[in-house]
Amino acid sequence: MLVTSLHHTRRSTVRAALSAEGVDALLVTDLINVRYLTGFTGSNAALLLVVADDEEPEHASGHTDRVTDEADPRTRFCTDGRYTTQSEAQVPDLPRLIARPCDVALLRGAPTGAVGFEARSLTVAAYDGLQAVARERARPVSLRTTLDVVEAARAIKDHTEIAALRRACAAADQALADLLAAEGLRPGRTEREVGLELDQRMRELGAEDPSFETIVAAGANSAIPHHRPTGAVLAAGDLVKLDFGATVDGYHSDMTRTYVLGEPQAWQREIYDLVHAAQAAGRAACAVGTTGGAVDAASRDVITQAGYGPQFAHGLGHGVGLQIHEAPSLARGVASIIAPDMCVTVEPGVYLPGRGGVRIEDSGVVRPDGYHVLTRTSKDLVAL
Amino acid sequence: MLVTSLHHTRRSTVRAALSAEGVDALLVTDLINVRYLTGFTGSNAALLLVVADDEEPEHASGHTDRVTDEADPRTRFCTDGRYTTQSEAQVPDLPRLIARPCDVALLRGAPTGAVGFEARSLTVAAYDGLQAVARERARPVSLRTTLDVVEAARAIKDHTEIAALRRACAAADQALADLLAAEGLRPGRTEREVGLELDQRMRELGAEDPSFETIVAAGANSAIPHHRPTGAVLAAGDLVKLDFGATVDGYHSDMTRTYVLGEPQAWQREIYDLVHAAQAAGRAACAVGTTGGAVDAASRDVITQAGYGPQFAHGLGHGVGLQIHEAPSLARGVASIIAPDMCVTVEPGVYLPGRGGVRIEDSGVVRPDGYHVLTRTSKDLVAL
Repeated sequence: MLVTSLHHTRRSTVRAALSAEGVDALLVTDLINVRYLTGFTGSNAALLLVVADDEEPEHASGHTDRVTDEADPRTRFCTDGRYTTQSEAQVPDLPRLIARPCDVALLRGAPTGAVGFEARSLTVAAYDGLQAVARERARPVSLRTTLDVVEAARAIKDHTEIAALRRACAAADQALADLLAAEGLRPGRTEREVGLELDQRMRELGAEDPSFETIVAAGANSAIPHHRPTGAVLAAGDLVKLDFGATVDGYHSDMTRTYVLGEPQAWQREIYDLVHAAQAAGRAACAVGTTGGAVDAASRDVITQAGYGPQFAHGLGHGVGLQIHEAPSLARGVASIIAPDMCVTVEPGVYLPGRGGVRIEDSGVVRPDGYHVLTRTSKDLVAL
Repeated sequence: MLVTSLHHTRRSTVRAALSAEGVDALLVTDLINVRYLTGFTGSNAALLLVVADDEEPEHASGHTDRVTDEADPRTRFCTDGRYTTQSEAQVPDLPRLIARPCDVALLRGAPTGAVGFEARSLTVAAYDGLQAVARERARPVSLRTTLDVVEAARAIKDHTEIAALRRACAAADQALADLLAAEGLRPGRTEREVGLELDQRMRELGAEDPSFETIVAAGANSAIPHHRPTGAVLAAGDLVKLDFGATVDGYHSDMTRTYVLGEPQAWQREIYDLVHAAQAAGRAACAVGTTGGAVDAASRDVITQAGYGPQFAHGLGHGVGLQIHEAPSLARGVASIIAPDMCVTVEPGVYLPGRGGVRIEDSGVVRPDGYHVLTRTSKDLVAL
């Protein structure tokens, strides 16, 4: 059971990090983290990862399925009755508790000791519910704040994750190639029409969804970094910026390409070539052992030295995976170290308000020999 | 300024509820609630609603825009620098703070006293950040848990909200009519193809998005209440259940229709007619002054008396609005009272595992003279 083993490996990685947190167990309530550690994709679930297994758990509420041969008795999974069948298929290797709310049911059955919770996702109302359980239990538990324990593990991708990202990037590449081949990017169409077509093509290629709201920004709108598509009509001479991605098996691709409708003007060519060079510099700097801040600086320096520093006002890149934005960050002052198998975007831009802007972005994976691009669409200046 | 006045009225309604909560101000961090009270649609913002205005606020961090003539000085709005332009357009009537994090900036500037926070949306990590502010302030504030204060106001729709829901329902009606007219529901297509076409048609009709992941469930799959579309092929004789909606201006429609591909068999007609009668009974019972539990019972009794009670295992309906599921709930034992201008779904179903199921659902608005359907597609049994 390949997938089962992978989830088991991920849980072991997280479990190893728990002693440094000073907790005896971790209550995982963030649904993305639950998916990462189990494969479960439903809308309600939680997980209890126990560090040691030298104690029988306290009796839990709800119905517990029998443990399968492959079971991991130090991990308890909980969902509600809507997901009994789905969880049996997706999470065959864990003892299953069917109860509501999941966090309360798992804490009732937790072994004595300190139980970490995910403070960035647990709401105060849910925390109050857990504290009530802690008070009523015969054998004491204490709740401890944790931050980004599972998120840190998620920053390093395993091979199935990289394969999923590869498929997500390929779907976006193909959708863009098909759009261009069908002359879908031409004067007279609206930004919104182009965006809808790109989204539809990604879905037809098997994407669950776009990774985020597709950006189609034409003419002066291309100078707005996060423009939402409007009824604005593409015109000859425009820069057209497309920033989009596909979600495949839960993993998000992210790519930006900028085109010119017709013969590029000198200023358009100038900023295009500049961003192109800065993006190459960022990719070259994105190496194991460097910092997120250093990668940002390597790309940003190219733009700053050309006098356009103030026109590049956002960070260089971010991790991609089960979320479109996740660890690590490539931005000014980030001290965290780039590790092998991190997947990040590299996306410098230059934006001239009222005129237009260029951004070029790849998603890629960091290997010991450098940054490998997963988004394969050409980055040469293309005049349509 | 019609829209401005509406948001002002909504804020007054919520402010009036705050004294019952025993707080001097409410910190609104739920983004849906921020949108409801201001019109702002960005991804980062917060709002401080102050009950009294007899005290100068403490100096806040960040940059504050000048207050316009129409300003509401007892409400402070905060977003970050990405949304300066957008918030000026969407929230012209409120003093604007540009800072990050928004909740911290607003609490720094809050008047002395008890400040309520939204415990169902605020995370423990964010709460810890607010407590640190409370400790460092010269003039004391204390944080108080609140639950569902804005959500309770949102359950009663004003006329712009009902108009938006009407447009959202109309887009779904039209998309389904167009799908049927184009013979899009026919043997040989997959559930996924039908779902993608319905979604695309809603987008082309102006929907921002589907209201939720469209359900297309054919044959035995129609017996699964929340089936996700698969590659399963529609076949002659199948029941096909479509549960879908359009999001227009942020408001969500929700409708289910069930068709038969070909001449209905006796068992299909039997459960169709039964669900049809139960849905009519639910609509008839959905009156001002009754309880959510009584509406559920009126519809459920029809199904139970026919011997299919166990085959209707979910609640009868739910509020729709800025969220696809919101207050009030129409379900067993719900004691809350139905009020004029609540918008709710009525959606009984009967599901025969391994064979097929029928659900019929409308979205509608409760008026003094009864339940008015907003989803206009015929509910007669249609054989395609």
